[in-house]
Amino acid sequence: MIKIYGVHGSPFVRKVLIALDYKGIPYEIIPQMPFSGDKEYLKINPLGKIPTLVDGELTLGDSKVICRYIESAYPEPALYPTGTADKAMADWFEDLCGGAVAEMAAGIFFQRFMRPFAFKQEPDEELVAKIIEKRLPPMLDYLEGKLPEKGFLFGNFTMADLSIVSPFINASYAGYEVDPSRWPRMAGLITAVREVSEVKSVLEKEAKALGLG
Amino acid sequence: MIKIYGVHGSPFVRKVLIALDYKGIPYEIIPQMPFSGDKEYLKINPLGKIPTLVDGELTLGDSKVICRYIESAYPEPALYPTGTADKAMADWFEDLCGGAVAEMAAGIFFQRFMRPFAFKQEPDEELVAKIIEKRLPPMLDYLEGKLPEKGFLFGNFTMADLSIVSPFINASYAGYEVDPSRWPRMAGLITAVREVSEVKSVLEKEAKALGLG
Repeated sequence: MIKIYGVHGSPFVRKVLIALDYKGIPYEIIPQMPFSGDKEYLKINPLGKIPTLVDGELTLGDSKVICRYIESAYPEPALYPTGTADKAMADWFEDLCGGAVAEMAAGIFFQRFMRPFAFKQEPDEELVAKIIEKRLPPMLDYLEGKLPEKGFLFGNFTMADLSIVSPFINASYAGYEVDPSRWPRMAGLITAVREVSEVKSVLEKEAKALGLG
Repeated sequence: MIKIYGVHGSPFVRKVLIALDYKGIPYEIIPQMPFSGDKEYLKINPLGKIPTLVDGELTLGDSKVICRYIESAYPEPALYPTGTADKAMADWFEDLCGGAVAEMAAGIFFQRFMRPFAFKQEPDEELVAKIIEKRLPPMLDYLEGKLPEKGFLFGNFTMADLSIVSPFINASYAGYEVDPSRWPRMAGLITAVREVSEVKSVLEKEAKALGLG
Protein backbone atom coordinates (compact mmCIF):
# COMPACT_ATOMS: atom_id res chain seq x y z
CA MET A 1 0.00 0.00 0.00
CA ILE A 2 1.16 3.55 -0.73
CA LYS A 3 2.76 5.23 2.29
CA ILE A 4 2.58 8.99 2.82
CA TYR A 5 4.97 10.42 5.37
CA GLY A 6 3.57 13.59 6.89
CA VAL A 7 0.94 15.08 9.15
CA HIS A 8 -2.45 16.68 8.65
CA GLY A 9 -2.34 20.46 8.43
CA SER A 10 0.44 20.83 5.86
CA PRO A 11 -0.91 22.40 2.65
CA PHE A 12 1.34 19.99 0.75
CA VAL A 13 0.31 16.79 2.53
CA ARG A 14 -3.30 17.91 2.06
CA LYS A 15 -2.88 18.09 -1.74
CA VAL A 16 -1.52 14.56 -1.91
CA LEU A 17 -4.20 13.04 0.35
CA ILE A 18 -6.95 14.72 -1.65
CA ALA A 19 -5.42 13.49 -4.92
CA LEU A 20 -5.30 9.91 -3.61
CA ASP A 21 -8.87 10.07 -2.26
CA TYR A 22 -10.09 11.59 -5.53
CA LYS A 23 -8.67 8.63 -7.43
CA GLY A 24 -9.85 6.12 -4.84
CA ILE A 25 -6.32 4.89 -4.07
CA PRO A 26 -5.84 3.47 -0.56
CA TYR A 27 -2.87 4.74 1.46
CA GLU A 28 -1.36 4.71 4.89
CA ILE A 29 -0.16 7.89 6.65
CA ILE A 30 3.16 7.51 8.47
CA PRO A 31 3.23 10.37 11.01
CA GLN A 32 6.23 12.60 10.30
CA MET A 33 6.78 16.20 11.35
CA PRO A 34 8.70 18.39 8.88
CA PHE A 35 12.26 19.51 9.72
CA SER A 36 12.40 17.17 12.71
CA GLY A 37 16.07 16.36 12.10
CA ASP A 38 15.13 12.64 12.18
CA LYS A 39 18.12 10.96 10.49
CA GLU A 40 16.19 7.96 9.19
CA TYR A 41 13.70 10.29 7.53
CA LEU A 42 16.47 12.41 5.99
CA LYS A 43 17.65 9.26 4.19
CA ILE A 44 14.38 9.08 2.26
CA ASN A 45 13.90 12.85 1.95
CA PRO A 46 17.13 14.84 2.32
CA LEU A 47 15.14 18.07 2.70
CA GLY A 48 13.28 16.79 5.78
CA LYS A 49 10.11 18.24 4.26
CA ILE A 50 6.71 16.57 4.06
CA PRO A 51 5.11 14.78 2.31
CA THR A 52 7.19 11.88 1.04
CA LEU A 53 5.51 9.11 -0.94
CA VAL A 54 6.69 5.52 -0.93
CA ASP A 55 5.02 3.33 -3.57
CA GLY A 56 6.81 -0.01 -3.77
CA GLU A 57 10.39 0.69 -4.87
CA LEU A 58 9.74 4.36 -5.57
CA THR A 59 10.41 7.11 -3.01
CA LEU A 60 9.52 10.69 -3.95
CA GLY A 61 9.51 14.02 -2.18
CA ASP A 62 7.63 17.24 -3.00
CA SER A 63 3.85 17.38 -3.34
CA LYS A 64 4.01 18.57 -6.97
CA VAL A 65 6.29 15.70 -7.97
CA ILE A 66 4.13 13.24 -6.00
CA CYS A 67 0.86 14.49 -7.51
CA ARG A 68 2.28 14.30 -11.05
CA TYR A 69 3.42 10.75 -10.34
CA ILE A 70 -0.01 9.80 -8.98
CA GLU A 71 -1.62 11.23 -12.14
CA SER A 72 0.79 9.31 -14.36
CA ALA A 73 0.52 5.98 -12.48
CA TYR A 74 -3.21 6.21 -11.72
CA PRO A 75 -4.65 8.37 -14.51
CA GLU A 76 -8.38 8.04 -13.76
CA PRO A 77 -10.21 10.22 -12.86
CA ALA A 78 -7.91 12.91 -14.26
CA LEU A 79 -6.69 15.66 -11.93
CA TYR A 80 -4.80 17.69 -14.52
CA PRO A 81 -6.18 19.38 -17.63
CA THR A 82 -5.49 17.96 -21.08
CA GLY A 83 -3.89 19.96 -23.87
CA THR A 84 -0.32 21.24 -23.89
CA ALA A 85 -1.05 24.88 -23.02
CA ASP A 86 -3.58 24.14 -20.25
CA LYS A 87 -1.29 21.49 -18.75
CA ALA A 88 1.58 23.99 -18.75
CA MET A 89 -0.55 26.70 -17.12
CA ALA A 90 -1.74 24.24 -14.45
CA ASP A 91 1.91 23.34 -13.84
CA TRP A 92 2.84 27.03 -13.50
CA PHE A 93 -0.01 27.73 -11.04
CA GLU A 94 0.99 24.70 -8.98
CA ASP A 95 4.60 25.85 -8.90
CA LEU A 96 3.81 29.48 -8.10
CA CYS A 97 1.28 28.68 -5.39
CA GLY A 98 3.30 25.81 -3.91
CA GLY A 99 6.29 28.15 -3.77
CA ALA A 100 6.00 31.89 -3.12
CA VAL A 101 2.27 32.00 -2.31
CA ALA A 102 2.48 29.01 0.07
CA GLU A 103 5.44 30.64 1.84
CA MET A 104 3.42 33.80 2.47
CA ALA A 105 0.40 31.85 3.72
CA ALA A 106 2.70 29.67 5.85
CA GLY A 107 4.11 32.84 7.39
CA ILE A 108 0.63 33.90 8.55
CA PHE A 109 -0.24 30.35 9.68
CA PHE A 110 3.03 29.91 11.58
CA GLN A 111 2.85 33.25 13.38
CA ARG A 112 -0.82 33.29 14.28
CA PHE A 113 -1.58 29.57 14.68
CA MET A 114 1.56 27.50 15.33
CA ARG A 115 3.35 30.00 17.57
CA PRO A 116 0.51 30.59 20.04
CA PHE A 117 -0.97 27.06 19.99
CA ALA A 118 2.07 24.81 19.54
CA PHE A 119 4.91 26.92 20.97
CA LYS A 120 3.07 29.20 23.43
CA GLN A 121 4.74 32.24 21.88
CA GLU A 122 3.39 35.60 20.73
CA PRO A 123 2.96 35.99 16.97
CA ASP A 124 5.16 38.51 15.15
CA GLU A 125 2.28 40.75 14.03
CA GLU A 126 4.61 43.12 12.20
CA LEU A 127 5.68 40.26 9.92
CA VAL A 128 2.07 39.15 9.46
CA ALA A 129 1.01 42.70 8.53
CA LYS A 130 3.84 42.92 5.98
CA ILE A 131 2.68 39.70 4.34
CA ILE A 132 -1.01 40.65 4.35
CA GLU A 133 -0.56 44.27 3.28
CA LYS A 134 2.52 44.22 1.05
CA ARG A 135 3.49 40.79 -0.21
CA LEU A 136 0.21 38.95 -0.79
CA PRO A 137 -1.83 41.60 -2.67
CA PRO A 138 0.30 41.58 -5.86
CA MET A 139 0.03 37.78 -5.97
CA LEU A 140 -3.72 37.92 -5.41
CA ASP A 141 -4.01 40.58 -8.14
CA TYR A 142 -2.06 38.34 -10.52
CA LEU A 143 -4.17 35.26 -9.73
CA GLU A 144 -7.43 37.26 -9.88
CA GLY A 145 -6.47 38.30 -13.41
CA LYS A 146 -6.04 34.67 -14.48
CA LEU A 147 -9.14 33.13 -12.92
CA PRO A 148 -12.48 32.65 -14.68
CA GLU A 149 -15.46 34.62 -13.39
CA LYS A 150 -16.99 31.45 -11.96
CA GLY A 151 -16.00 27.85 -11.33
CA PHE A 152 -12.70 26.07 -11.76
CA LEU A 153 -9.78 27.15 -13.93
CA PHE A 154 -10.10 24.45 -16.57
CA GLY A 155 -13.78 23.48 -16.30
CA ASN A 156 -13.42 20.39 -14.10
CA PHE A 157 -11.70 20.48 -10.71
CA THR A 158 -7.91 20.04 -11.16
CA MET A 159 -4.73 20.21 -9.11
CA ALA A 160 -4.34 23.79 -10.32
CA ASP A 161 -7.45 24.83 -8.36
CA LEU A 162 -6.37 22.86 -5.31
CA SER A 163 -2.80 24.23 -5.46
CA ILE A 164 -4.02 27.81 -5.60
CA VAL A 165 -6.47 27.31 -2.72
CA SER A 166 -4.50 25.02 -0.38
CA PRO A 167 -2.23 27.75 1.12
CA PHE A 168 -5.27 29.91 1.86
CA ILE A 169 -6.86 27.13 3.91
CA ASN A 170 -3.86 27.41 6.25
CA ALA A 171 -4.15 31.18 6.27
CA SER A 172 -7.83 30.80 7.21
CA TYR A 173 -6.86 28.71 10.27
CA ALA A 174 -4.96 31.81 11.30
CA GLY A 175 -7.95 34.08 10.75
CA TYR A 176 -6.99 35.45 7.34
CA GLU A 177 -9.65 35.36 4.61
CA VAL A 178 -9.22 36.63 1.05
CA ASP A 179 -11.34 39.79 0.76
CA PRO A 180 -14.22 38.88 -1.60
CA SER A 181 -14.86 42.51 -2.51
CA ARG A 182 -11.28 43.02 -3.69
CA TRP A 183 -10.58 39.54 -5.13
CA PRO A 184 -14.02 38.02 -5.90
CA ARG A 185 -12.72 35.33 -8.26
CA MET A 186 -10.15 34.09 -5.75
CA ALA A 187 -12.68 34.08 -2.93
CA GLY A 188 -15.13 32.22 -5.19
CA LEU A 189 -12.52 29.62 -6.11
CA ILE A 190 -11.71 29.01 -2.44
CA THR A 191 -15.42 28.38 -1.76
CA ALA A 192 -15.77 26.09 -4.80
CA VAL A 193 -12.71 24.00 -3.89
CA ARG A 194 -13.87 23.61 -0.28
CA GLU A 195 -17.12 22.12 -1.62
CA VAL A 196 -15.42 19.26 -3.52
CA SER A 197 -16.33 16.18 -1.47
CA GLU A 198 -12.76 14.78 -1.25
CA VAL A 199 -11.53 18.20 -0.10
CA LYS A 200 -14.28 18.42 2.48
CA SER A 201 -13.51 15.00 3.95
CA VAL A 202 -9.74 15.63 4.22
CA LEU A 203 -10.45 19.03 5.83
CA GLU A 204 -12.67 17.33 8.42
CA LYS A 205 -9.86 14.92 9.39
CA GLU A 206 -7.46 17.83 9.45
CA ALA A 207 -9.67 19.94 11.72
CA LYS A 208 -9.73 17.07 14.21
CA ALA A 209 -5.95 16.62 14.00
CA LEU A 210 -5.42 20.35 14.60
CA GLY A 211 -7.85 20.38 17.50
CA LEU A 212 -10.37 22.51 15.61
CA GLY A 213 -12.98 19.78 15.23
CA MET B 1 9.46 33.03 -32.22
CA ILE B 2 9.80 31.87 -28.60
CA LYS B 3 11.00 34.63 -26.27
CA ILE B 4 13.07 33.86 -23.18
CA TYR B 5 13.33 36.64 -20.61
CA GLY B 6 16.55 36.34 -18.66
CA VAL B 7 20.32 36.65 -18.74
CA HIS B 8 23.21 34.25 -19.21
CA GLY B 9 24.67 32.99 -15.96
CA SER B 10 21.45 31.90 -14.23
CA PRO B 11 21.42 28.12 -13.70
CA PHE B 12 17.71 28.22 -14.58
CA VAL B 13 18.00 30.25 -17.79
CA ARG B 14 20.85 27.93 -18.78
CA LYS B 15 18.60 24.83 -18.50
CA VAL B 16 15.97 26.36 -20.76
CA LEU B 17 18.44 27.57 -23.42
CA ILE B 18 20.11 24.15 -23.52
CA ALA B 19 16.70 22.42 -23.82
CA LEU B 20 15.75 24.68 -26.75
CA ASP B 21 19.12 24.20 -28.48
CA TYR B 22 18.91 20.44 -27.93
CA LYS B 23 15.58 20.35 -29.72
CA GLY B 24 16.69 22.77 -32.42
CA ILE B 25 14.02 25.36 -31.54
CA PRO B 26 14.92 28.96 -32.41
CA TYR B 27 14.42 31.60 -29.69
CA GLU B 28 15.15 35.18 -28.86
CA ILE B 29 16.62 36.23 -25.47
CA ILE B 30 15.02 39.36 -23.98
CA PRO B 31 17.58 40.67 -21.46
CA GLN B 32 16.01 40.72 -17.99
CA MET B 33 17.76 40.73 -14.63
CA PRO B 34 16.03 38.85 -11.82
CA PHE B 35 14.39 40.79 -8.95
CA SER B 36 14.85 44.09 -10.78
CA GLY B 37 11.50 45.44 -9.52
CA ASP B 38 10.61 46.21 -13.16
CA LYS B 39 6.81 46.62 -13.03
CA GLU B 40 6.20 45.58 -16.62
CA TYR B 41 8.13 42.35 -16.02
CA LEU B 42 6.23 41.63 -12.79
CA LYS B 43 3.04 41.57 -14.87
CA ILE B 44 4.28 38.58 -16.81
CA ASN B 45 6.12 36.94 -13.89
CA PRO B 46 4.87 38.07 -10.47
CA LEU B 47 7.94 36.53 -8.81
CA GLY B 48 10.35 38.71 -10.79
CA LYS B 49 12.47 35.60 -11.30
CA ILE B 50 14.11 34.44 -14.52
CA PRO B 51 13.53 32.81 -16.95
CA THR B 52 10.07 33.51 -18.31
CA LEU B 53 9.01 31.93 -21.60
CA VAL B 54 6.57 33.55 -24.01
CA ASP B 55 5.42 31.24 -26.82
CA GLY B 56 2.54 32.86 -28.68
CA GLU B 57 -0.33 33.29 -26.22
CA LEU B 58 1.39 31.30 -23.48
CA THR B 59 3.48 32.94 -20.74
CA LEU B 60 5.22 30.68 -18.21
CA GLY B 61 7.65 31.15 -15.35
CA ASP B 62 9.97 28.67 -13.65
CA SER B 63 12.56 26.65 -15.54
CA LYS B 64 11.03 23.31 -14.55
CA VAL B 65 7.59 24.34 -15.77
CA ILE B 66 9.12 25.79 -18.94
CA CYS B 67 11.22 22.71 -19.69
CA ARG B 68 8.24 20.38 -19.19
CA TYR B 69 6.23 22.57 -21.56
CA ILE B 70 9.02 22.50 -24.15
CA GLU B 71 9.12 18.68 -23.89
CA SER B 72 5.36 18.44 -24.28
CA ALA B 73 5.08 20.91 -27.19
CA TYR B 74 8.28 19.85 -28.97
CA PRO B 75 8.79 16.21 -27.98
CA GLU B 76 11.74 15.32 -30.24
CA PRO B 77 14.50 14.60 -29.34
CA ALA B 78 13.27 13.60 -25.87
CA LEU B 79 14.85 15.29 -22.85
CA TYR B 80 13.00 13.30 -20.18
CA PRO B 81 13.07 9.57 -19.56
CA THR B 82 10.11 7.38 -20.47
CA GLY B 83 8.34 5.12 -17.98
CA THR B 84 6.32 6.31 -15.01
CA ALA B 85 8.91 5.62 -12.30
CA ASP B 86 11.88 7.05 -14.22
CA LYS B 87 9.87 10.13 -15.20
CA ALA B 88 8.88 10.65 -11.55
CA MET B 89 12.48 10.27 -10.36
CA ALA B 90 13.69 12.74 -13.00
CA ASP B 91 10.99 15.14 -11.80
CA TRP B 92 12.12 14.72 -8.18
CA PHE B 93 15.80 15.34 -9.05
CA GLU B 94 14.84 18.43 -11.03
CA ASP B 95 12.78 19.74 -8.13
CA LEU B 96 15.38 18.97 -5.46
CA CYS B 97 18.30 20.40 -7.42
CA GLY B 98 16.36 23.40 -8.74
CA GLY B 99 15.32 24.12 -5.15
CA ALA B 100 17.52 23.44 -2.14
CA VAL B 101 20.69 22.43 -4.02
CA ALA B 102 20.50 25.43 -6.37
CA GLU B 103 20.02 27.75 -3.38
CA MET B 104 23.20 26.45 -1.76
CA ALA B 105 25.19 26.76 -4.98
CA ALA B 106 23.71 30.23 -5.55
CA GLY B 107 24.91 31.19 -2.08
CA ILE B 108 28.49 30.32 -3.01
CA PHE B 109 28.16 31.97 -6.44
CA PHE B 110 26.61 35.15 -5.04
CA GLN B 111 29.18 35.59 -2.27
CA ARG B 112 32.32 34.71 -4.18
CA PHE B 113 31.44 35.84 -7.69
CA MET B 114 28.62 38.39 -7.76
CA ARG B 115 29.61 40.34 -4.64
CA PRO B 116 33.23 41.01 -5.59
CA PHE B 117 32.74 41.37 -9.37
CA ALA B 118 29.30 43.01 -9.67
CA PHE B 119 28.95 44.84 -6.36
CA LYS B 120 32.61 45.43 -5.34
CA GLN B 121 31.92 43.94 -1.91
CA GLU B 122 33.75 41.35 0.18
CA PRO B 123 32.22 37.86 0.20
CA ASP B 124 30.77 36.52 3.46
CA GLU B 125 33.24 33.63 3.79
CA GLU B 126 31.62 32.40 6.98
CA LEU B 127 28.37 31.80 5.10
CA VAL B 128 30.24 30.16 2.22
CA ALA B 129 32.07 27.82 4.65
CA LYS B 130 28.78 26.86 6.27
CA ILE B 131 27.32 25.92 2.90
CA ILE B 132 30.41 24.01 1.74
CA GLU B 133 31.12 22.20 5.01
CA LYS B 134 27.69 21.69 6.54
CA ARG B 135 24.78 22.08 4.14
CA LEU B 136 26.04 20.71 0.83
CA PRO B 137 27.68 17.42 1.94
CA PRO B 138 24.41 15.66 2.96
CA MET B 139 22.89 16.61 -0.40
CA LEU B 140 25.97 15.39 -2.26
CA ASP B 141 25.88 12.14 -0.24
CA TYR B 142 22.22 11.66 -1.16
CA LEU B 143 22.81 12.33 -4.86
CA GLU B 144 25.96 10.17 -4.92
CA GLY B 145 23.83 7.28 -3.61
CA LYS B 146 21.36 7.68 -6.47
CA LEU B 147 23.77 8.11 -9.40
CA PRO B 148 25.02 5.31 -11.63
CA GLU B 149 28.73 4.48 -11.52
CA LYS B 150 29.21 5.97 -14.96
CA GLY B 151 27.26 8.03 -17.47
CA PHE B 152 23.86 9.65 -17.24
CA LEU B 153 21.07 8.76 -14.82
CA PHE B 154 18.70 7.20 -17.34
CA GLY B 155 21.08 6.11 -20.14
CA ASN B 156 20.64 9.07 -22.48
CA PHE B 157 21.23 12.67 -21.41
CA THR B 158 18.07 14.08 -19.78
CA MET B 159 16.93 17.17 -17.89
CA ALA B 160 17.58 15.24 -14.67
CA ASP B 161 21.32 15.21 -15.41
CA LEU B 162 21.31 18.86 -16.42
CA SER B 163 19.25 19.89 -13.37
CA ILE B 164 21.63 18.15 -10.99
CA VAL B 165 24.72 19.65 -12.64
CA SER B 166 23.54 23.19 -13.47
CA PRO B 167 23.90 24.65 -9.93
CA PHE B 168 27.44 23.26 -9.70
CA ILE B 169 28.45 25.14 -12.84
CA ASN B 170 27.66 28.36 -10.95
CA ALA B 171 29.53 27.11 -7.92
CA SER B 172 32.53 26.39 -10.16
CA TYR B 173 32.55 30.04 -11.35
CA ALA B 174 33.08 30.83 -7.67
CA GLY B 175 35.97 28.37 -7.35
CA TYR B 176 34.05 25.48 -5.77
CA GLU B 177 34.47 22.02 -7.34
CA VAL B 178 32.81 18.81 -6.13
CA ASP B 179 35.58 16.67 -4.59
CA PRO B 180 36.00 13.69 -6.96
CA SER B 181 37.58 11.54 -4.25
CA ARG B 182 34.57 11.96 -1.94
CA TRP B 183 31.77 12.11 -4.55
CA PRO B 184 33.19 10.41 -7.67
CA ARG B 185 29.81 9.80 -9.35
CA MET B 186 28.73 13.43 -8.95
CA ALA B 187 32.08 14.69 -10.24
CA GLY B 188 31.82 12.27 -13.16
CA LEU B 189 28.29 13.43 -14.00
CA ILE B 190 29.40 17.08 -14.00
CA THR B 191 32.18 16.22 -16.47
CA ALA B 192 29.80 14.18 -18.67
CA VAL B 193 27.15 16.92 -18.80
CA ARG B 194 29.75 19.58 -19.64
CA GLU B 195 30.72 17.46 -22.69
CA VAL B 196 27.22 17.48 -24.24
CA SER B 197 27.61 19.75 -27.28
CA GLU B 198 24.54 21.92 -26.56
CA VAL B 199 25.75 22.41 -22.98
CA LYS B 200 29.23 23.32 -24.21
CA SER B 201 27.95 25.93 -26.64
CA VAL B 202 25.65 27.62 -24.09
CA LEU B 203 28.52 27.64 -21.56
CA GLU B 204 30.75 29.37 -24.11
CA LYS B 205 28.19 32.14 -24.63
CA GLU B 206 27.77 32.38 -20.88
CA ALA B 207 31.50 32.69 -20.24
CA LYS B 208 31.61 35.65 -22.63
CA ALA B 209 28.58 37.27 -20.99
CA LEU B 210 30.15 36.88 -17.54
CA GLY B 211 33.48 38.27 -18.74
CA LEU B 212 35.24 34.92 -18.31
CA GLY B 213 35.73 34.31 -22.06
